[in-house]
Amino acid sequence: MASYTAIDNYLEDHLDESLSELSKLCAIPSVAAKNQGMDEGAELVEDMLKKRGFKVEIMPSGGPPVVFAERKGESDKTLMFYNHYDVQPPEPLELWDSPPFEATQRNGKLYARGVSDDKGHFVSRLFAIDALLAVDSELPCNIKFVVEGEEETGSNHMPDFVKDNADKLAADVCIWEFGGVDFRDVPMQTVGMRGICYVELSVETAKIDVHSGLGGSIFPNAAWRLVWALTTLKGQDERIRLPNYYENVVHPTERDKELFAALPDKAAEYKQRYGVQEFLKGVEGGADLLVQEVFEPTCTICGLTSGYQGPGSKTVLPAVASAKVDFRLVPNQTPEEVLTKLRAHLDAEGFSDIKITYNGGEPPGRTDPDDPFIDLVVNAATDIYGTPQQIVPMTGGSGPNHAFLHYLELPVATSGISYPGAKVHAPNENIRIDLYMKGAKHITRIMKDFGES
Amino acid sequence: MASYTAIDNYLEDHLDESLSELSKLCAIPSVAAKNQGMDEGAELVEDMLKKRGFKVEIMPSGGPPVVFAERKGESDKTLMFYNHYDVQPPEPLELWDSPPFEATQRNGKLYARGVSDDKGHFVSRLFAIDALLAVDSELPCNIKFVVEGEEETGSNHMPDFVKDNADKLAADVCIWEFGGVDFRDVPMQTVGMRGICYVELSVETAKIDVHSGLGGSIFPNAAWRLVWALTTLKGQDERIRLPNYYENVVHPTERDKELFAALPDKAAEYKQRYGVQEFLKGVEGGADLLVQEVFEPTCTICGLTSGYQGPGSKTVLPAVASAKVDFRLVPNQTPEEVLTKLRAHLDAEGFSDIKITYNGGEPPGRTDPDDPFIDLVVNAATDIYGTPQQIVPMTGGSGPNHAFLHYLELPVATSGISYPGAKVHAPNENIRIDLYMKGAKHITRIMKDFGES
Repeated sequence: MASYTAIDNYLEDHLDESLSELSKLCAIPSVAAKNQGMDEGAELVEDMLKKRGFKVEIMPSGGPPVVFAERKGESDKTLMFYNHYDVQPPEPLELWDSPPFEATQRNGKLYARGVSDDKGHFVSRLFAIDALLAVDSELPCNIKFVVEGEEETGSNHMPDFVKDNADKLAADVCIWEFGGVDFRDVPMQTVGMRGICYVELSVETAKIDVHSGLGGSIFPNAAWRLVWALTTLKGQDERIRLPNYYENVVHPTERDKELFAALPDKAAEYKQRYGVQEFLKGVEGGADLLVQEVFEPTCTICGLTSGYQGPGSKTVLPAVASAKVDFRLVPNQTPEEVLTKLRAHLDAEGFSDIKITYNGGEPPGRTDPDDPFIDLVVNAATDIYGTPQQIVPMTGGSGPNHAFLHYLELPVATSGISYPGAKVHAPNENIRIDLYMKGAKHITRIMKDFGES
Repeated sequence: MASYTAIDNYLEDHLDESLSELSKLCAIPSVAAKNQGMDEGAELVEDMLKKRGFKVEIMPSGGPPVVFAERKGESDKTLMFYNHYDVQPPEPLELWDSPPFEATQRNGKLYARGVSDDKGHFVSRLFAIDALLAVDSELPCNIKFVVEGEEETGSNHMPDFVKDNADKLAADVCIWEFGGVDFRDVPMQTVGMRGICYVELSVETAKIDVHSGLGGSIFPNAAWRLVWALTTLKGQDERIRLPNYYENVVHPTERDKELFAALPDKAAEYKQRYGVQEFLKGVEGGADLLVQEVFEPTCTICGLTSGYQGPGSKTVLPAVASAKVDFRLVPNQTPEEVLTKLRAHLDAEGFSDIKITYNGGEPPGRTDPDDPFIDLVVNAATDIYGTPQQIVPMTGGSGPNHAFLHYLELPVATSGISYPGAKVHAPNENIRIDLYMKGAKHITRIMKDFGES
């Protein structure tokens, strides 16, 4: 086992420098949903990689540009990092305690939109690379970076990008954009992600809004049409009502259940953190809660909008209404399948007037929990966290990991700086600075172990 | 019959002056829903009335102030004008062709928020008074004005105000805030208004929004709770599902039906104006459409709001959701009755988590279509429009007419300047200037006929 004293000393001595570089990246409001600051974000990422001696290309993707970078190392094996420079919209702004695009340190944490998801992960990997270069003068293995700009809107162009550039992107293993500890500070290894199909449902019942005193009993109301249509998608029993919706669902294996059973109960933590009284379908906690959380297909209303939404009353009958709806997919569902079933269902229920706009999606993807690279990453954690990573068979989130699994045939492992209080996608997104350090250290171990393996 | 040559000449010669005074009133953004410009609105109304020799008081109402004014006339009989200085919110701003609070003339029309509802009506009555004073030096009857500031949010304080000031407000007859012609340019006499009960339904399922990738299958979703609760209120058959909701509904009389049957078919006009394909419950037109329009209780979603509503996608599970819902009431329903039934219904359906906020309401109110004052106003129109007013038994809108009917025992008639293209409550609200003139002329006839009756 290599000695990490010099590497760890470098990291301890250069923490503020790295956080300052991270803060600069967080100052760019690269909100993919609004197509803001994409070029600016990509260019700063490019500069940061060039500074480390990477050969960098800003590549067109059909959407925001992808930053691709590579640098040779001692061994001939290649480790790829997948990250993204785009962030979620910062709204609602009034709930932030400090401006979302001015990274602010308070109580051992750094707050900013994107500081955890995903800019902090990206910069912590550069930080690890800095330490290895400073101490060893070269990297233990070849490194490639794929840093995209539309992860938060569903990585719509990523699968084709990976497929079309499969030769250039060829690697042996992949470290995913995220990772971190659970509420006990135990590091987690997540080997799968659900898929997603994100749609906007909209309806227009008239060309202008009508005075509600005039139209209520004779004119169709877009808000009512939308509400009734939504109700046909999912009942209060949480069962998705699209015909044959569950036909391609693969249930968790015995090994999955064993891994879930080894994980701690999240019930109390979830209740406390989110202020909820009870979970859906009466599940109380333990492995049952974990299995339901990720192996149950979802249909989530993410947003509703129609008519007057300001203070007080406006007596208006809305001509238009829309909802944003997010379906999370489990193996082997696909977004294409959901779109087809959704259109057929709405038509059959008498809602041909409801328009479906596909905002993006991706299929689910999983790595074998017993893959040797998973084992390497899991065990490399022990030196940092005092315990190996614990394996999570699948997480509720989605990402383009399926493209790396399918087109590049890479095992995809996770390692990172996040924790349950990170408030990703919410106001006051933050990282714990101690975990930022641990994350960087873990990456140095992974790279060295992989180079020597 | 009096000669109106001098009066009409005065009106023709002073039209621009009156429109300029109206434009000044429209420049005040007196949006009751936002509690904006209320004092400023009341003070300008006060100035305008004082200029005409009225004794004016700005009276507290519990809400925005009420401007009360009186001036003696030749006869000892008193005619009251009810108007309001508040307006609807101007949103959506991007659909206005000129700024909502800068009255703009185009093609024989004057555009501004409130120019029709209700500032134009108020100023056209002052214009008529100017003409009578200029020609006759005195008014033919006593005149009282009640000009309130929260009609657009449901006149919440008006019933108590009228009740508490019944002596001061005593009068013989009342001209209501609005009136005008239908799509044939035939003047209409509206002798009743529906009631209203306006509520906001809201629900909170967690203390913060949750990442939809995490929570979709285990956390309650405020948007889903709201959608499911709303669906229990009204089905696609348009039947309101609150138990015993229809028990106090009075059906139209034979006289009502006779009056409706005399009215022209509105089907084609409605379809053209609003761009709708068909009416609810399969009604095609004629008297059936008119009866359904006003004698059918309604439950209208006026607004929906939850989660992310911006461009693109945000994968969020909303912690809060709300809807604005407007129930229009027919005789003898009351807002109190609706609130009680709504709470009981939601509780019984398992939606005790849905909070009801009462934004205001009022019961329905009707004047006898055969009242002598209705007859006077109807016939005074002939000289101006070439035809008497045609009687409409009830209109879909709501107002505090019930307070004037009940506490002051006044017959309430309508006369005004509006027309079906006025876009009240919508962008590009406007008046036709020719109808502004006719409305003022009609008022001069009503006042003189009433003074001499």
